[in-house]
Amino acid sequence: MNFTLHHKDSQTKARVGSLETEHGVIQTPIFMPVGTAGSVKAVHQRELKEDVKAQIILGNTYHLFLRPGLSIIEQAGGLHKFNGWDRPILTDSGGYQVFSLAENRKITEEGVVFKSHIDGSKQQFTPENVMDIQRTIGADIIMAFDECTPYPCEWPYAKKSMDLTHRWLKRCIKRFDETSGRYGYEQHLFPIVQGSVYKDLRTESAEFVAEQGRVGNAIGGLSVGEPAELMYEMTEWVTAILPEDRPRYLMGVGTPANVLECIALGVDMFDCVMPTRNARNGMLFTTEGIINIRNEKWKDDFSAIDLGFENEVSNFYTKAYLRHLTIAKEMLAAQIASIHNLSFYLWLVGQAREHIQSGDFPQWKRHMVEKVSRRR
Amino acid sequence: MNFTLHHKDSQTKARVGSLETEHGVIQTPIFMPVGTAGSVKAVHQRELKEDVKAQIILGNTYHLFLRPGLSIIEQAGGLHKFNGWDRPILTDSGGYQVFSLAENRKITEEGVVFKSHIDGSKQQFTPENVMDIQRTIGADIIMAFDECTPYPCEWPYAKKSMDLTHRWLKRCIKRFDETSGRYGYEQHLFPIVQGSVYKDLRTESAEFVAEQGRVGNAIGGLSVGEPAELMYEMTEWVTAILPEDRPRYLMGVGTPANVLECIALGVDMFDCVMPTRNARNGMLFTTEGIINIRNEKWKDDFSAIDLGFENEVSNFYTKAYLRHLTIAKEMLAAQIASIHNLSFYLWLVGQAREHIQSGDFPQWKRHMVEKVSRRR
Ligand SMILES: [Zn+2]
Ligand SMILES: [Zn+2]
Repeated sequence: MNFTLHHKDSQTKARVGSLETEHGVIQTPIFMPVGTAGSVKAVHQRELKEDVKAQIILGNTYHLFLRPGLSIIEQAGGLHKFNGWDRPILTDSGGYQVFSLAENRKITEEGVVFKSHIDGSKQQFTPENVMDIQRTIGADIIMAFDECTPYPCEWPYAKKSMDLTHRWLKRCIKRFDETSGRYGYEQHLFPIVQGSVYKDLRTESAEFVAEQGRVGNAIGGLSVGEPAELMYEMTEWVTAILPEDRPRYLMGVGTPANVLECIALGVDMFDCVMPTRNARNGMLFTTEGIINIRNEKWKDDFSAIDLGFENEVSNFYTKAYLRHLTIAKEMLAAQIASIHNLSFYLWLVGQAREHIQSGDFPQWKRHMVEKVSRRR
Repeated sequence: MNFTLHHKDSQTKARVGSLETEHGVIQTPIFMPVGTAGSVKAVHQRELKEDVKAQIILGNTYHLFLRPGLSIIEQAGGLHKFNGWDRPILTDSGGYQVFSLAENRKITEEGVVFKSHIDGSKQQFTPENVMDIQRTIGADIIMAFDECTPYPCEWPYAKKSMDLTHRWLKRCIKRFDETSGRYGYEQHLFPIVQGSVYKDLRTESAEFVAEQGRVGNAIGGLSVGEPAELMYEMTEWVTAILPEDRPRYLMGVGTPANVLECIALGVDMFDCVMPTRNARNGMLFTTEGIINIRNEKWKDDFSAIDLGFENEVSNFYTKAYLRHLTIAKEMLAAQIASIHNLSFYLWLVGQAREHIQSGDFPQWKRHMVEKVSRRR
């Protein structure tokens, strides 16, 4: 995997790069749509390519492990073959889902024992088997098994959790480096910086992660309920420590404004369920601000959903029609809104890349953050 | 509206024709996907054109009248403008939905008073206002307001109901002919033959309908639970009476085998919720028979859903992947299955047209009915 930095903004830490994988090149900064169970909800694979213009999607190890299960994915020849998505895939480690199972999981030094939310069966994730699982899923980018601390989180717990995450990281790296890809292409492991909202812990974690010298690095444990300002502060702190010549992935972030702000802080990769989940609830991110399409004010607005960027779906359907579909609980509502929101996110990061290269990123970002944050 | 008969099969009553509307030409025999509330469930408008190759879709007057309501549709400039479907649209009369409301409706000579299933509000449908409503929706083909008798149905009730339907038909015609289209294109009224499963009533009704001399005619009250043989018998009886030079629409039919058999009996137009509703339940109609994709036998079948005809969606996704999506309750499952089933129906009637023209329709039909009826 090759990461090339093409351009750095002179006033912010924003940068444009490209990340080569054996399933294709990813232009950064990039947003990765979330394809939980091997499907980006309500969006066809060809729509992801042609409308959304997704360059990489994310799969959830926890969900895929439980269903369809590794045996099916392996027989298919990996997730790319199973779901027909032939561009890059990143898988999370499953940790985030497992830890949110609350009383249905138990953390030990060895790993986590948990009960499947589907059939109640007892399962175990360890740093080692999570590497094996992601290898079998066939992700191009594999995430380390970490504990994502909640917010708020007391310093002592955050410290203890971070130390565990670091010990797990060493085990992940060992197992990962002892094994190889199953399907004839290279896979890559990204370690994850933790440390909650504490600068001393974030420093320690970022330094520990940087020392591992992996091809890319991730920042976890943010966007879990803390104020945006705190998230920006931690992100800025960490990106200053992580190596400049490697891609930086900020996990689970965020709103369009969050994404733009964090690009300015030196982040290259993002993922979030927000564009698809909110789409299913009728919330649209547009070039003119945030819309709740259920609002009565749209019932006779026969203008296109969004003419602010070129997109067949957003330019074709009207707000009034989408509102009707949403109120009538028609599946097409979620389909339209999901394509629109994802297309908007991908357009936004594409615009960011252009403005970083043309040299007016800070001004453009300031203006855009204001525009896309407005509630209409 | 011009209906041209291009070819008649020599051994059966099957025929190939074309029906010109101001929104485009319809090749018959044709199947019309059902777009209940202005959306064919789970299918984008462009998918209807490019994948399904739909030539005309159906809208439900009852649903559209209640939501989004006439005012919105009228402000949009009609349903074509509202939902972005610029090919022909046929609307039913709303009668079928209203009569199935059971205790929430009351039939009188004047019409039907009913309670909305959405907000409980009291509404009325009469032959006159149903013409006005469909004119406002902007359908190219408008259906008469009739009572669709259930099955089984005693002769006296069937007779009484048919007589009411005939009196209502005269009122529909009067109102329809006194009014004109709102949006600058011609609309056309199809009367409906009733009479349950009684030959004497079907004869009387078909003759009455034929006498009205409308541009097209429909057969209602079938496919409501009666044995298929009885449906075929009634259809054959009625098509023998309806004028040969006008299109014949058999309402609410049916399985792929039903459609093929009724094409052989001289039917030109079909609609049914089966391809879309069954798709949402995991039942697929394929060139090799009927599949329940939830069945465990498909879990590791990595062959395409259907390679028996050219279709991007059916040829791209595998049975194992579709089964996984269905079991995991992913929306994409319904999207894939709906496109597949509808594409299959449209392919099937297209094949029927070709075989009627090439002269081997009876043999092809016999073979095909057997193939598509098999359970796999
Ligand atoms: Zn998120
Ligand atoms: Zn039907």
